Amino acid sequence: MSQYRVLIDANDEKGLVHKISGIFYQNDFNILSNSEFVDSENNKFFMRSVVEGDMDLDELYQSICEVMPQNANIEVIAPKKKNIVIMATKEMHALGDILVRHEAGELEANILCVISNYAELGPFVKKFNIPFIEISNVGLDREEHEEKIIDTLSEFNDINYIVLAKYMRILTPKFIKIYENRIINIHHSFLPAFIGANPYKQAYERGVKIIGATSHFVNNNLDEGPIIAQEVIHVNHAYSWRDMQRMGKDVEKVVLSRALRLALEDRIFVYANKTVIF
Amino acid sequence: MSQYRVLIDANDEKGLVHKISGIFYQNDFNILSNSEFVDSENNKFFMRSVVEGDMDLDELYQSICEVMPQNANIEVIAPKKKNIVIMATKEMHALGDILVRHEAGELEANILCVISNYAELGPFVKKFNIPFIEISNVGLDREEHEEKIIDTLSEFNDINYIVLAKYMRILTPKFIKIYENRIINIHHSFLPAFIGANPYKQAYERGVKIIGATSHFVNNNLDEGPIIAQEVIHVNHAYSWRDMQRMGKDVEKVVLSRALRLALEDRIFVYANKTVIF
Amino acid sequence: MSQYRVLIDANDEKGLVHKISGIFYQNDFNILSNSEFVDSENNKFFMRSVVEGDMDLDELYQSICEVMPQNANIEVIAPKKKNIVIMATKEMHALGDILVRHEAGELEANILCVISNYAELGPFVKKFNIPFIEISNVGLDREEHEEKIIDTLSEFNDINYIVLAKYMRILTPKFIKIYENRIINIHHSFLPAFIGANPYKQAYERGVKIIGATSHFVNNNLDEGPIIAQEVIHVNHAYSWRDMQRMGKDVEKVVLSRALRLALEDRIFVYANKTVIF
Amino acid sequence: MSQYRVLIDANDEKGLVHKISGIFYQNDFNILSNSEFVDSENNKFFMRSVVEGDMDLDELYQSICEVMPQNANIEVIAPKKKNIVIMATKEMHALGDILVRHEAGELEANILCVISNYAELGPFVKKFNIPFIEISNVGLDREEHEEKIIDTLSEFNDINYIVLAKYMRILTPKFIKIYENRIINIHHSFLPAFIGANPYKQAYERGVKIIGATSHFVNNNLDEGPIIAQEVIHVNHAYSWRDMQRMGKDVEKVVLSRALRLALEDRIFVYANKTVIF
Repeated sequence: MSQYRVLIDANDEKGLVHKISGIFYQNDFNILSNSEFVDSENNKFFMRSVVEGDMDLDELYQSICEVMPQNANIEVIAPKKKNIVIMATKEMHALGDILVRHEAGELEANILCVISNYAELGPFVKKFNIPFIEISNVGLDREEHEEKIIDTLSEFNDINYIVLAKYMRILTPKFIKIYENRIINIHHSFLPAFIGANPYKQAYERGVKIIGATSHFVNNNLDEGPIIAQEVIHVNHAYSWRDMQRMGKDVEKVVLSRALRLALEDRIFVYANKTVIF
Repeated sequence: MSQYRVLIDANDEKGLVHKISGIFYQNDFNILSNSEFVDSENNKFFMRSVVEGDMDLDELYQSICEVMPQNANIEVIAPKKKNIVIMATKEMHALGDILVRHEAGELEANILCVISNYAELGPFVKKFNIPFIEISNVGLDREEHEEKIIDTLSEFNDINYIVLAKYMRILTPKFIKIYENRIINIHHSFLPAFIGANPYKQAYERGVKIIGATSHFVNNNLDEGPIIAQEVIHVNHAYSWRDMQRMGKDVEKVVLSRALRLALEDRIFVYANKTVIF
Repeated sequence: MSQYRVLIDANDEKGLVHKISGIFYQNDFNILSNSEFVDSENNKFFMRSVVEGDMDLDELYQSICEVMPQNANIEVIAPKKKNIVIMATKEMHALGDILVRHEAGELEANILCVISNYAELGPFVKKFNIPFIEISNVGLDREEHEEKIIDTLSEFNDINYIVLAKYMRILTPKFIKIYENRIINIHHSFLPAFIGANPYKQAYERGVKIIGATSHFVNNNLDEGPIIAQEVIHVNHAYSWRDMQRMGKDVEKVVLSRALRLALEDRIFVYANKTVIF
Repeated sequence: MSQYRVLIDANDEKGLVHKISGIFYQNDFNILSNSEFVDSENNKFFMRSVVEGDMDLDELYQSICEVMPQNANIEVIAPKKKNIVIMATKEMHALGDILVRHEAGELEANILCVISNYAELGPFVKKFNIPFIEISNVGLDREEHEEKIIDTLSEFNDINYIVLAKYMRILTPKFIKIYENRIINIHHSFLPAFIGANPYKQAYERGVKIIGATSHFVNNNLDEGPIIAQEVIHVNHAYSWRDMQRMGKDVEKVVLSRALRLALEDRIFVYANKTVIF
C-alpha cells in the first residue's frame, strides 16, 4: 500500500469533489483525510486529500487528470523527505531550532547546506554535520553576490525549499523568480505592521502591547509575500526594544518552524498573494 | 434556491464522500462548504456540508438515506432560528452577553425565556422583552425544584438548546436525559482542572499562571461532559482569587457565546464524550 | 481609614522612592500596592501606589509635593465613580458590553449619556435608563457637527473620559484638544497595521493569519494615539472579511472594556505617545 | 560601578520600602528596577530591586540586614553565570532548546553536564562540548539509581539549578530535599489537569480544545510543586494524541526555557507552594 497526497486547485464548478472521490473509490483507496475550500469570491476550488491504496503514482495522477477540467492544477505526491537549503546571517536561534528538529528526526527534510554571508555560524552548523557555505558579500554588489549564491545552489539537485532563517539581505527579483513560492522567510514583526528594518525598534517606539513574527513566501515586494503563519506575544511598557528583540526570538523560531513543517507536509496553496493551508 | 446543512456520521467505509457528493452533483447542488473527518481509531466518519439547490428538504434527506449505510445518522437542516432557553442564577455577564447579541441580531436564535432560581435578574431580562421566570428552590428538594422547571419547559414547543449561563445548581440525570446533548454549560475553569465549586479559588490556591473557562454539554458526571470550547488568560501572583473571578468573567462569556454559536450553526457532533466541530 | 491612589511621574533622580515612601511611612499609611517604572532612555520615573490611612487627601498631596522635585506631576485620587460619556454610531456590541458591565456594577463609572450621529441605538440605550442623545451630522460639515457635540458635552460637569464605542467619524483637533488623553477609542485592527477605513477588508486582502483590535487614546493623527490595550485572534483562509468582522467584534469589545477599566482605575500614564500601565 | 539584585521577603509591616530604599539612597545607588508585592492574605512582603552603585556586596547586604526585621530573608546577588545541570531521558527538543540558547550566549548559565538514564542523547550533547553522563537505572532500584546520581552531582561545586528537560523518572524525597526549590521540571500538560503519565493521551481522551505545558519546582508530590510558567495551544478533534504530543513539544521547550531564564535572573520567590515572579 502506498500513501499519496493529492493537491488540486481549479476554477470551481459542480461535481469536482464527486469526480475526485470517485477516482479514489473506484480504485479502492482509503481516504485518510480530506480538506476542501471554495473561495466563492474568486470562484476557486482547493482540495487536499491523503489517500492510501495500491495504484501507482502516475496512474493515480492520470486518472485524476482525466476527470478534472483543463484549468486544474493537480499534484500527486508520495511523502518523502524534501530537500531544503537554509540561508542565515549571524543569528543562531531560528537556524538552531531547525537543526535540532532535523537532528531529532522531526522534519521531513534533508538539509543540503546552510549558506551565510558571514563565517560566524560555521562552527555551529558543522556540529550537525551539515555543509556550511560562506558566501561573503564584501566587495560585491547585490547582483554579484547573488550570482555566487545562485551558482552554489545550482550544484544541488531538486531544492524544494529555501528557508531564510534570519537572512538579513534583500533578494533580487531574479533570485525570487527562480524559486517562486519556494522561499520561506521569517519577518520579525506582525506583518503588515513594521515592514522593513528594525521592526522591534519600530514596535517599541509605537508603544504596542503585542509583538509578533510572520513567516511568508518571498516575493518582489519587501515583506509583502503570501503569509503562511503568524504568532504573537504580549509585551508592556517595561520592555526595552532589546527585550522585545530577545523575547521575539522565541516567536520567530516557532513560527518559522511551523511554516516549514506546513510546506514539507504539502499543506500550502498559494494564490492571490495569500495562502490556503490545510 | 434553498440552503441546507447536511450532517452525517457513520461507521467509516470506502465511498462515503463519493456517494454523498454524488447526490449533490446529480441534483445540481452547489457545495458552499464541505468538512470531513475520520476518527481512524474508532472507525467513525463525520461530514458536514452546506449546499444550495432547488430540491426540497425531505427529498434530499431521502436521497442521502438511500446511498448511506444503515448505521448512518443523517440530518438535513434548513437554517432557521433555533429556540433556546437560558437558565441563570444571579450573575449578569454571560446572560447579558447573549441578550445583547440577540438584540443585535447576531444570534440564529429565539430566546423563549430566561429561568432563574432567584428574582434578581428579572428586571434586567425584562428590559430585553424576554420572559423571565423565577423558579425558586426555597423549601424544595432538588427533584421537586427540577420538576417545576421541567413543567415550565414543557409549555414550550421545540426547545433546541438550554443554555446554562452560570446556573449554579447541579441538574439531575432525569433532567439531563430529556435534553441529552442539548444543555450547554459554561464552567469557570480550564477543565478538567478544578472541577466543582469555586474553581477560581482552587486555581488561586494552586498558584496557576493561566486560568480559563470551558463550555461543554452537560452529562451525568459533574463537569465531565463533551467539551465544545475553551479559552484562557494569563494571570500572575498579584491576582487575588477575586481578581481571577473578575477577569475570568470575560473569558466565560466569550466561550459560552462561542459554543452557543457553534450549536446554532449545527457545527457540533458528539461522540465518545467528545465533540467534532466543523 | 481612606484609600488613595497616588500617581507620580517625574524626571528620574535618586531618592524618589525613598522620599515618597517616607511620606507614607511617617503618616502611618499602609501600602496596598506599589508599582514603579523607570524609562532610562528618557530618564523618566513613574510610580503608582495604592495606600490606606487617616490623613486627608489634600494633606497627603501637599506632603508629597514638598518632597518631590518641581517637575513632578502628582495626583492623589480618592477612588470614586468617574463620569463617562459614550459615543457610538450604529453598532451595538462594544456599547452593549459597557452598558451590561455598568448594569452589573462592574464599572467604577457613571455613564452620563450616550451620543450617536444616528437614531438606531436609542431604544437599546434607553433600556438601561441612560440618556441617549442623537446628534445627526446630516447637512452639517464636520466642524458644525462637532460644535453641536461640544455644546451638548458642555452641559455635563466633570467628564472624565469619552469612550468611542465604534464611533465611526473622525474627530477634529479642536475636539481632541479639549479632551486630551481622555478620549478612548477602539480601532478594529492590530495597530499600526490597517490604519483607517475597513481594516477587516484590508486584513482579508493581505491574507493575515491573525486579526486584532487596539484601544488607544485619540490624538490628531488618525489611529496613531497612545496604545492602551491590544488583543488578537487567529483566523485562516476560510474566513471571509465578514467573518473576520464578526469574530473581531468579540475582540473589540473585550479590548475596549479592558482599556476603560484601566482608565477608571487610574492605571495609565501617557508620555512620548505611549502608555505606562500599572 | 557594580550591579546587584536585591531580593527580600518578610512579614509585611509599615516602612519596609522606605527603609530599603533609604539604604539605596544614602549609599548613592541607582535603582534600575524595583518590584514589590504584598500578599495581604498571608501578610507577606516581597521585593526585588536591581541597583547600581559603588558599595561592595557584603556591605550592602549588612546595611539592609540592619534595617530589616529579624524574620526577613535577604539576598544580594551580583549577576553572574549560574551553574546548572540538565537531566534528560531520550527526548531532544527541550534539551536542544537549552543547548542552543547556551551556545548562542542567551543564557546566564554554565551547563556543568547533562545526565541521562539512557545513552541516546550522548552524541547530541557532545556536539556542544558539554559533558554527557549516562547513569543507567538498569538493574537498580530507585534509591540505588539516585544514589549514583547524587554521587555524580556531588563532584560539582555550586550547582544552582537542576533542570529536568523531560527526565522521565520520579525523584525521591531525599533527592528533592538536597535541591529544594532548585529543581525545575517541565510537565507536558496544563497542570493541575492531567497529572502523571501520558498527559497528552489523557487530554486526547478527555477531548480538550486546548493543551499546555507547565514548568514548576519539584516537590514531594508528583506534579504539584510551585508553578513557574505555563503556556497553551489550541487543538481540535482532528489532533490524534500523537499530534498533540508533537505540537506540545513546542510549548514544552518554550515554557521550560522561560522558567529557566526567570530562575537565572533571580526573579522567582517561592512560598505557600506558589511563586511570586518579578
